[in-house]
Amino acid sequence: LKIGVLGSGTVGRTLAGKLSSLGHDLTIGTRDVDALMARTEPDGMGNPPFSVWKGSHPAIAVETFEVAAASGELLINATSGTGSLEALEQAGAANLNGKVLIDVSNPLDFSNGFPPSLSVCNTDSLAEQIQRAFPEAKVVKSLNTMTAAVMVDTGSVAGGDHDVFLSGDDEGAKNQVRKLLASFGWKNIHDLGGIETARGVEMWLPLWLFLMGGPMGGAMFNLKMVKA
Amino acid sequence: LKIGVLGSGTVGRTLAGKLSSLGHDLTIGTRDVDALMARTEPDGMGNPPFSVWKGSHPAIAVETFEVAAASGELLINATSGTGSLEALEQAGAANLNGKVLIDVSNPLDFSNGFPPSLSVCNTDSLAEQIQRAFPEAKVVKSLNTMTAAVMVDTGSVAGGDHDVFLSGDDEGAKNQVRKLLASFGWKNIHDLGGIETARGVEMWLPLWLFLMGGPMGGAMFNLKMVKA
Repeated sequence: LKIGVLGSGTVGRTLAGKLSSLGHDLTIGTRDVDALMARTEPDGMGNPPFSVWKGSHPAIAVETFEVAAASGELLINATSGTGSLEALEQAGAANLNGKVLIDVSNPLDFSNGFPPSLSVCNTDSLAEQIQRAFPEAKVVKSLNTMTAAVMVDTGSVAGGDHDVFLSGDDEGAKNQVRKLLASFGWKNIHDLGGIETARGVEMWLPLWLFLMGGPMGGAMFNLKMVKA
Repeated sequence: LKIGVLGSGTVGRTLAGKLSSLGHDLTIGTRDVDALMARTEPDGMGNPPFSVWKGSHPAIAVETFEVAAASGELLINATSGTGSLEALEQAGAANLNGKVLIDVSNPLDFSNGFPPSLSVCNTDSLAEQIQRAFPEAKVVKSLNTMTAAVMVDTGSVAGGDHDVFLSGDDEGAKNQVRKLLASFGWKNIHDLGGIETARGVEMWLPLWLFLMGGPMGGAMFNLKMVKA
């Protein structure tokens, strides 16, 4: 499958790398390709500059948001949540229309430090904003509830027995995302319902952050639902 | 221990019943004792009227918020979240000061139907509002992340191997709540940190509600954290 991943940070790189290793044809989209490739310093999280990562992933193309979106039969929004709508505008509605758009982003606003607040929540969500802005895209929220390394390596936590969610209005799109998740090794995939249920998975982030910074001692964890 | 439970709904009844069965001396607080005892119809959730429940729990006293709060050495806020601050005002600051106040409520606003929104979230929480309004109470948020039946019967789900959280600024108060939770059978008790971490557990509710109404097929479930 031709897949466009919008966003060149850890989440975008991790998903693109995994999808490429599964045989898909990947293009990463970014705002300014030259600026991205010219960076030589690690990012704020200590990740190596993109060009270093790119050197070890020669099969993955890097293009503008617009070109990456145009090239993909399926798209993934892995931009930072507060910049997602602008990035998708740059990608262009014509390049999103009719396509499955997996939204893995979180609308975290770190402008006031830790803990971040959500730039949208409660009666709305980023996924709903994206769906409203691009009504002909088939937005499916998923994978935003965990750190990138766990998204693509389910076995790294509890032998893979933990959970991931789907939110979206298009059943066919959700089925396609379900198959993609299964190809990553996901077994416990819960369909929450329409795109408005993305409020739930986005509002999970504050608890995730407190767990990451406290009892879990880092980001390599996930939740598992258990029932009677 | 003398324990005052503010709130006569399902959560208050369930916690009071469990604590009474463990040998504690329970008083349930309510706005208007006569009105509560006079009700003969089931509530909106189909629960029997309070007087019927009370008939099978003769050892549990029923008093005003004020008398119940005054009588308790430890207090539990099990009122509906949108009415909690008013109920605690009626209880009276003098009756809360210096005491552990376990806040199990959720600020769910059903006035616009399902899904409810939160009346406070993101940069604040109900638990923080309560702590600010009653600075000399030792507020500990806990147990709000699940249905009442699971709070007091951990074994009803996955053999008891699932998780509960603590948020609060007073370490001694959190230790006291930890012991109380252990007496219920809780094993996986995660201390998230200060009272501001209540934002996380309150903002979990939207996802809980979507899971309850969807993939979990009801309220008898909980989450379990798993890590690498």
